[in-house]
Amino acid sequence: MIKVVLFDLDDTLVDTTKLAERARRNAVENMVKHGLPVDFETAYNELLDLINEYGSNFSRHFDYLLRRLDLSYNPKWVAAGVIGYHNTKFTQLKDVKNAKKALIKLSSMGLRLGIVTDGDPIKQWEKILRLELEDFFEHVIISDFEGVKKPHPKIYQKALKLFGVEPEEAVMVGDRLYSDIYGAKNVGMHTVWFRYGKRKNSDLDYREYADFEIHDLLELPKLLEGLRNEESSNKEVHAHR
Amino acid sequence: MIKVVLFDLDDTLVDTTKLAERARRNAVENMVKHGLPVDFETAYNELLDLINEYGSNFSRHFDYLLRRLDLSYNPKWVAAGVIGYHNTKFTQLKDVKNAKKALIKLSSMGLRLGIVTDGDPIKQWEKILRLELEDFFEHVIISDFEGVKKPHPKIYQKALKLFGVEPEEAVMVGDRLYSDIYGAKNVGMHTVWFRYGKRKNSDLDYREYADFEIHDLLELPKLLEGLRNEESSNKEVHAHR
Repeated sequence: MIKVVLFDLDDTLVDTTKLAERARRNAVENMVKHGLPVDFETAYNELLDLINEYGSNFSRHFDYLLRRLDLSYNPKWVAAGVIGYHNTKFTQLKDVKNAKKALIKLSSMGLRLGIVTDGDPIKQWEKILRLELEDFFEHVIISDFEGVKKPHPKIYQKALKLFGVEPEEAVMVGDRLYSDIYGAKNVGMHTVWFRYGKRKNSDLDYREYADFEIHDLLELPKLLEGLRNEESSNKEVHAHR
Repeated sequence: MIKVVLFDLDDTLVDTTKLAERARRNAVENMVKHGLPVDFETAYNELLDLINEYGSNFSRHFDYLLRRLDLSYNPKWVAAGVIGYHNTKFTQLKDVKNAKKALIKLSSMGLRLGIVTDGDPIKQWEKILRLELEDFFEHVIISDFEGVKKPHPKIYQKALKLFGVEPEEAVMVGDRLYSDIYGAKNVGMHTVWFRYGKRKNSDLDYREYADFEIHDLLELPKLLEGLRNEESSNKEVHAHR
């Protein structure tokens, strides 16, 4: 009997990739507006290369962008980038389409909800609090805080322990086949691959670990309803044997 | 003949102290709202002590606040603090009363304007750009970027050199008697002490270095008008001798 639904955060509940792209565009636009002597496309593509090489959590993107463009350091341009980036992040942070509707529906079905996510704990909590998602979730488990990353079994086992349920009583929902789906299946949980955003076609080797695939979070309530009914009819069959 | 007016930034053009206080209050309020098990006054006073000891640019205020309150680390509370702080900083950043009016008036009098400020260059530029003050100023000199701090003469000499004027052709306006007024007078500039904010009664030993004291930035145009007239009549007297 499914009792607990665990969600990944980025690109499952929070529209992170879209936001980051918008924020980077606005950062570069604001830098050009304040005198960066390079056209938008050149600067933007250089920034994407840089993020690709140094990772999206590197804290000196705009400094390094100037270096890569052979420009001398100018704190005004960096500040313009920071403003463009932050203004977007703070005003345009959005939950994924139908996320709240799905959470409300699942709660009303008596399911207990949790988040299991990678990432910087403070930044992840910022997203949760800013979107006012907090009250839906009994536990928020952030891997960096635990010292392991998904798909490490420990993070999923920790979640199960916190909820006090067995693996087969829990479902993991996430956009990443390797981290979310393979990881959760590995400890015996049910898995729902949310085929969404930039991971839509990533890690397809791990697709076999997904029990279900959805394209819209509103498919979840019905799917879990079905899974519950199936289980209870299986039990009946058992009882009649 | 006065040609150039140099301004300090924090608490002269930008209402920094008021903003910081509001931001800290909102940070603690948001932490309490999200479950920090301490009353507002206790937490806020502890934060003020902490800032007093570690400085306002210390980057781990909220972490350390939890330690000082003997609470275990909780990224949710830190995130709540960060959100409260940033929301305030980004939405309530204000220029000092009459700052823009005074800048417009001084510009229309043909005076050339500059900023000479301490502080982190990116953060200082963020304030300037967010308040759209940039276009008023021919040069922005930020001491941390030059490797010296006010009242070091180098920072003032650098400003004079950038404008290509003699010390007696420039006025420094600032809220800090030691850094702004003593520093600028030391290199031979005219000085206007803006008696405003938390420095209203600080460093009074250096008061003798202030040629003028004002309580409102709108006093500046008239004052500088008077100074110009006085100089030109002095010149006439000279000429008639």
